[in-house]
Amino acid sequence: MLRVAIDAMGGDHAPQVVIEGAVSAVQANKGKLEVVLCGPESLLKQELENAGYQGDSISIIDAPDVVAMDEHPTEVLRKKPNSGLVTCVALQKKGLVHASISAGNSGAMMASCLMLLGRSTDTFTRPPIACAIPTAKNRTVLVDAGANIDEKASVLVDFAIAGSVFAESYLGYENPRVALLNMGEEEKKGPVVVQEAYQQLKNTSLNFIGNVEGRGLIAGDADVIVTSGFTGNVVLKMLEGFYELHQSLFGTIDSPEGKRFAEMWDYRSTGGALLLGLNGTGVIAHGCSDARAIEQAILSASQFAETKIAENVGKKLADFKRS
Amino acid sequence: MLRVAIDAMGGDHAPQVVIEGAVSAVQANKGKLEVVLCGPESLLKQELENAGYQGDSISIIDAPDVVAMDEHPTEVLRKKPNSGLVTCVALQKKGLVHASISAGNSGAMMASCLMLLGRSTDTFTRPPIACAIPTAKNRTVLVDAGANIDEKASVLVDFAIAGSVFAESYLGYENPRVALLNMGEEEKKGPVVVQEAYQQLKNTSLNFIGNVEGRGLIAGDADVIVTSGFTGNVVLKMLEGFYELHQSLFGTIDSPEGKRFAEMWDYRSTGGALLLGLNGTGVIAHGCSDARAIEQAILSASQFAETKIAENVGKKLADFKRS
Repeated sequence: MLRVAIDAMGGDHAPQVVIEGAVSAVQANKGKLEVVLCGPESLLKQELENAGYQGDSISIIDAPDVVAMDEHPTEVLRKKPNSGLVTCVALQKKGLVHASISAGNSGAMMASCLMLLGRSTDTFTRPPIACAIPTAKNRTVLVDAGANIDEKASVLVDFAIAGSVFAESYLGYENPRVALLNMGEEEKKGPVVVQEAYQQLKNTSLNFIGNVEGRGLIAGDADVIVTSGFTGNVVLKMLEGFYELHQSLFGTIDSPEGKRFAEMWDYRSTGGALLLGLNGTGVIAHGCSDARAIEQAILSASQFAETKIAENVGKKLADFKRS
Repeated sequence: MLRVAIDAMGGDHAPQVVIEGAVSAVQANKGKLEVVLCGPESLLKQELENAGYQGDSISIIDAPDVVAMDEHPTEVLRKKPNSGLVTCVALQKKGLVHASISAGNSGAMMASCLMLLGRSTDTFTRPPIACAIPTAKNRTVLVDAGANIDEKASVLVDFAIAGSVFAESYLGYENPRVALLNMGEEEKKGPVVVQEAYQQLKNTSLNFIGNVEGRGLIAGDADVIVTSGFTGNVVLKMLEGFYELHQSLFGTIDSPEGKRFAEMWDYRSTGGALLLGLNGTGVIAHGCSDARAIEQAILSASQFAETKIAENVGKKLADFKRS
């Protein structure tokens, strides 16, 4: 039985959509999944009743403090220990749940995971965000999707190692093709830090296929795209923007390709983004998540925990440091 | 009469598509536009005859040397002065044409423009590339679309000034909204260099609207998007990749929105990309240009020259330095 804790007050449409998403998730995975809602107990009880849920796969942990989107991450941890956000991580620290999710203040979620779960490796100052993005072919792992800035080359190499584990464990890719996002395919292209990372990646045992450009990223030419958190965030938001534009102009096109596109490119189907390099499974969901997005985030979080990505990333990074 | 010189041997499908594009361009602009084809004379004569062109708006300047895509930019200038690429720029230097275009080795085109036309301002080590990209609304100026790496904050500010002139002169936008591409809208987001540029841009007379994310870029929330050449290139290639994906899945959708999307998002309709900060009009066309893309590149080059973007950018940058 996998147990996932979620910040019931996190996100633009909380708590309603969190509860609806949790109900859908446990109903689709009876006997395999439990969800722990963390937030103000009486409110959540009422909402759960409103949603008509009668089963015993959802429980509530009282966490009355509410975190605002603009609160400073470390202050949240200090001043709001009884918030849904901090509580869902604290439960994991105590071994009571296998994964923790928030669609709220993502900086505070990162800080809470970092401080409470701790680093599995000292290689990352901040845990990079891994996200399974849509492409013209299959999903590709994007790392870092927006946690870090101004990374050194060695940090990009560690993103590559962690992203490769994610692609293997979560997406089931054998020997995933790892690429650096760059402004040309040649070895000597791009910022100095990317060129340095290229040289370092050549000397690892990863299946490093070199540089891909933005076009190759969309075409699905790599299984893992390694880039700075800055560029990764631009990429992620552009993918969302393109899907939105497409839907606003054309809606879901009534063909097998149209349905596949709408399914894969809808950010709500992506599930949550995983923080890598922690002793545990911390998941960030989209702030504007609806019930379907929350359901997917819960399902992906349980799979992240089940496939032991956190442990595997820690091990693999340690192996690389030793070798 | 505007006169545009083009490297007839530049690009994957040269010289045929260059000649076809030139013929279409002059036929659509009779009495207003002349094209000078630079390349091996006998070959070009034959091709022009094959294309059935009989008018006197296209002339040929013999330039027998051919530049390979992987030749080192500065070596091209030294060793291939009689190439179409170098010749089309040299003609502009002599005052014989108003603009120069190549779809060939873009590094060599940049070096030739820089050395022969010269900088209008010493603010740019390399001229940034400005490109009128598609969005959900109107076109937005992207600068730098891929010439520079590892820029300082002051260079990003100069991109903003130059891009603002481009948006006013070429796209006719009054008081264009200038934004920094970033991983969040808040002032304190992103790499140190972007944060510094933010502070500097606040103190200019530009219509600086702050940061936009990748989603806002696609939504058309700004008229000028300022970013490093590295990120700009990723953005540009992703836009191309989106269009390709859409066309491969759905083709042109038979509705007003579908036709507008296909027209605007097709990179062949974008025209050429302009090098900014030069004493002249140097235009880079896509390596895989077909005849339509070449025609658009010729038309946009003539408009870049006609609207005096080069002069205006030089003046505006000088004004900013004085003030």
